[in-house]
Amino acid sequence: MTNYKTIREEAFEANRQLPELGLVIFTFGNVSVVDRSSAVFAIKPSGVPYAELSPEKMVIVDFEGNKVEGGLRPSSDTRTHAVLYSHWKKIGAIVHTHSVYATAWAQALRDIPIYGTTHADHHSGFIPCVPPMSDEMIRGEYEQQTGFQIINHLKEKNLDYEEVEMILVGNHAPFTWGPNAAKAVYNSAVLESISQMALLTEQINPDALPLKESLIKKHFERKHGPDSYYGQ
Amino acid sequence: MTNYKTIREEAFEANRQLPELGLVIFTFGNVSVVDRSSAVFAIKPSGVPYAELSPEKMVIVDFEGNKVEGGLRPSSDTRTHAVLYSHWKKIGAIVHTHSVYATAWAQALRDIPIYGTTHADHHSGFIPCVPPMSDEMIRGEYEQQTGFQIINHLKEKNLDYEEVEMILVGNHAPFTWGPNAAKAVYNSAVLESISQMALLTEQINPDALPLKESLIKKHFERKHGPDSYYGQ
Amino acid sequence: MTNYKTIREEAFEANRQLPELGLVIFTFGNVSVVDRSSAVFAIKPSGVPYAELSPEKMVIVDFEGNKVEGGLRPSSDTRTHAVLYSHWKKIGAIVHTHSVYATAWAQALRDIPIYGTTHADHHSGFIPCVPPMSDEMIRGEYEQQTGFQIINHLKEKNLDYEEVEMILVGNHAPFTWGPNAAKAVYNSAVLESISQMALLTEQINPDALPLKESLIKKHFERKHGPDSYYGQ
Amino acid sequence: MTNYKTIREEAFEANRQLPELGLVIFTFGNVSVVDRSSAVFAIKPSGVPYAELSPEKMVIVDFEGNKVEGGLRPSSDTRTHAVLYSHWKKIGAIVHTHSVYATAWAQALRDIPIYGTTHADHHSGFIPCVPPMSDEMIRGEYEQQTGFQIINHLKEKNLDYEEVEMILVGNHAPFTWGPNAAKAVYNSAVLESISQMALLTEQINPDALPLKESLIKKHFERKHGPDSYYGQ
Repeated sequence: MTNYKTIREEAFEANRQLPELGLVIFTFGNVSVVDRSSAVFAIKPSGVPYAELSPEKMVIVDFEGNKVEGGLRPSSDTRTHAVLYSHWKKIGAIVHTHSVYATAWAQALRDIPIYGTTHADHHSGFIPCVPPMSDEMIRGEYEQQTGFQIINHLKEKNLDYEEVEMILVGNHAPFTWGPNAAKAVYNSAVLESISQMALLTEQINPDALPLKESLIKKHFERKHGPDSYYGQ
Repeated sequence: MTNYKTIREEAFEANRQLPELGLVIFTFGNVSVVDRSSAVFAIKPSGVPYAELSPEKMVIVDFEGNKVEGGLRPSSDTRTHAVLYSHWKKIGAIVHTHSVYATAWAQALRDIPIYGTTHADHHSGFIPCVPPMSDEMIRGEYEQQTGFQIINHLKEKNLDYEEVEMILVGNHAPFTWGPNAAKAVYNSAVLESISQMALLTEQINPDALPLKESLIKKHFERKHGPDSYYGQ
Repeated sequence: MTNYKTIREEAFEANRQLPELGLVIFTFGNVSVVDRSSAVFAIKPSGVPYAELSPEKMVIVDFEGNKVEGGLRPSSDTRTHAVLYSHWKKIGAIVHTHSVYATAWAQALRDIPIYGTTHADHHSGFIPCVPPMSDEMIRGEYEQQTGFQIINHLKEKNLDYEEVEMILVGNHAPFTWGPNAAKAVYNSAVLESISQMALLTEQINPDALPLKESLIKKHFERKHGPDSYYGQ
Repeated sequence: MTNYKTIREEAFEANRQLPELGLVIFTFGNVSVVDRSSAVFAIKPSGVPYAELSPEKMVIVDFEGNKVEGGLRPSSDTRTHAVLYSHWKKIGAIVHTHSVYATAWAQALRDIPIYGTTHADHHSGFIPCVPPMSDEMIRGEYEQQTGFQIINHLKEKNLDYEEVEMILVGNHAPFTWGPNAAKAVYNSAVLESISQMALLTEQINPDALPLKESLIKKHFERKHGPDSYYGQ
């Protein structure tokens, strides 16, 4: 008898989408989906290939990162997810991948400049890159600290997690999130596309400049906020 | 009972081709097809994934951009299409994508140089990039102004819309068109290929020069004009 | 009743492989296969998409470029093929594509340096790039002259067409050939791979040097000549 | 009656994975799998396309490189595999490909810098590139010498073959290995991904620095050694 059927299935489906969208190979990423009423989330088991997943194999974990249900060990990144769920009350799902272009920006330790409307449709500023944490933190509770680094970096930049649903962890790789799994996975694919376009833009024109403010505002507000007119 | 069956089906088919040709992800593009006798066009509904489209879901819109038929809201770029149809009497379809390489050139604010015969087979000059419009125009009727910017930019460059069926909107992305949906979609895929080749050419040889005039003329005239001998 | 059944089928199959190998989109390339006993070759009809081809649609042409059999107009590049067949007695098939990386080297007007054994396995020197022909020749029998340019360029470089089965036509795109269609298509795919690797090599190390002579000789002779020991 | 059924099947399956993972075209790579109890290994036959392989076509070879069983000639790289098996007692399989990005680093004669955790998850230092051997060695037993070059280069760098399961052979291409075929093939795909990310990182930030020691240690130890907590 399986509990948490809904989040198990949503997490299973979302994990399966990662290789289909070209965002991961082998076991290079994980999706989790939260059940706020029970204060637990379903996450990919560690090191299991996407083709061998099933809803039953998803692992149920609480916000301290403790396993609540499931025969397998959860993703090694579980505590990062747990910290984000416990601090950001309105997110419903988290995605972590090592998608090639976004990871390259993370390795280059650069924020992704906003060069066009594809970017502005999703965020009105640069995509932030969190600098690597101190040696002490790395040697301590590394995965938990990764969560805190993400949260603190957004705070320092005066950014709300509902405003920017994607971030690069320096020298590591991207994390994205959203109100549900579909949106969080979508954000990972969009981030990969924005990452590739930004590099190509700089290769075509090394003096390329960020988008001007009026255009950022227009595109972001077409899709977000009270006057948005994108979608149904 | 569905009206405008032909353009609904043609628009549906053409929209479905965009992801197959690798030109879009999710909902990053739209195709419209015009019915000149009724002065309306069929266009993709806003924010609906390609896999969920059907001929019935296409939205019928007039040249002012007003919805004539359909339960869904039309693409947020609808007014750009409307302006182009009302001014360019001989086009039958319009395609807008955020394909990666063409969008990168648009973000780099550069015209695409004509480096080879692949380009010359389709247009005898640089592919123009329209500079971003004024802040005032952006804050006004943005999508409509995008149409006017495209039309005016071709005029300034002394280019005819039947000569060059593709353009980059600066900081945004490409638009292409043609006498019918198949040709307009073809132009989007060709533009993406030309965009990639042009960047690679500059990477292989930073001093690469545009094609000489005699070769441009030869290749363009093989495919176009009274003495063309390409195709059946 | 169809004549030239064998070359029709071989040409059909080979043309169908081009999109499968990622070497062409739409109608961006053509394969021909020769029947030496009849002094004719089968070639793709002009402007017909690969998915609509059949052995019956292949066009039979003689070495002057005149149509011998077939309802459709042959490829606009037919006279280039005809010149090569009439001068190079031992080739069995010719392939022309606009594959992205090889075309970019052609547009950059550079020979492809021999940077590794992948290249040396197939040719022991740079892949030559034929400079664009004179304006007069372009305005004259352009396609025929393209064939002569290829032949003359190899002569000037003291290269035998059985030694190097691939070439770049400057500002245009690659041609490859071989004793049969399978080998000629193989050469087009190999050339595309070598082209990509050579650009990446220069990006990773702008001071990269060509392979040393002993290694070139070893790898080329593993696959070719009396002491070869590659294959069955 | 087929002997060595297990290694034939494992080698067959692993060879078939190479094109599926996008690591090879045509016959550009080979996998072998060892049977330590019989001191033989099964390897791909030379020049046979992946689609035409079967377990029966695998060739059984001893550690001197002599054929023990099989109707076909073994891969031309067989003696490199033989040398590695006879010196490295704990490896179970070897993979050689000409995957595009890894081969480009080999052609560029550069070690791959460790720019991120994707790399650190698999090796705690740069991925070594073996310099080309002397002309004398090339003219001698080239394939055997390639094996010795790999072994000696790791020794010089004080690296254990169980620590780093991948290497670039300068001007040639990558070799990877592992306790079994699945791991050795996995390593080839991971190396290709790391190779691409490293180039992109340098393109995004020409001053990018290697990962700091604490982060390398953390990620490598998450996956390897007594305190690892990745996987099941």
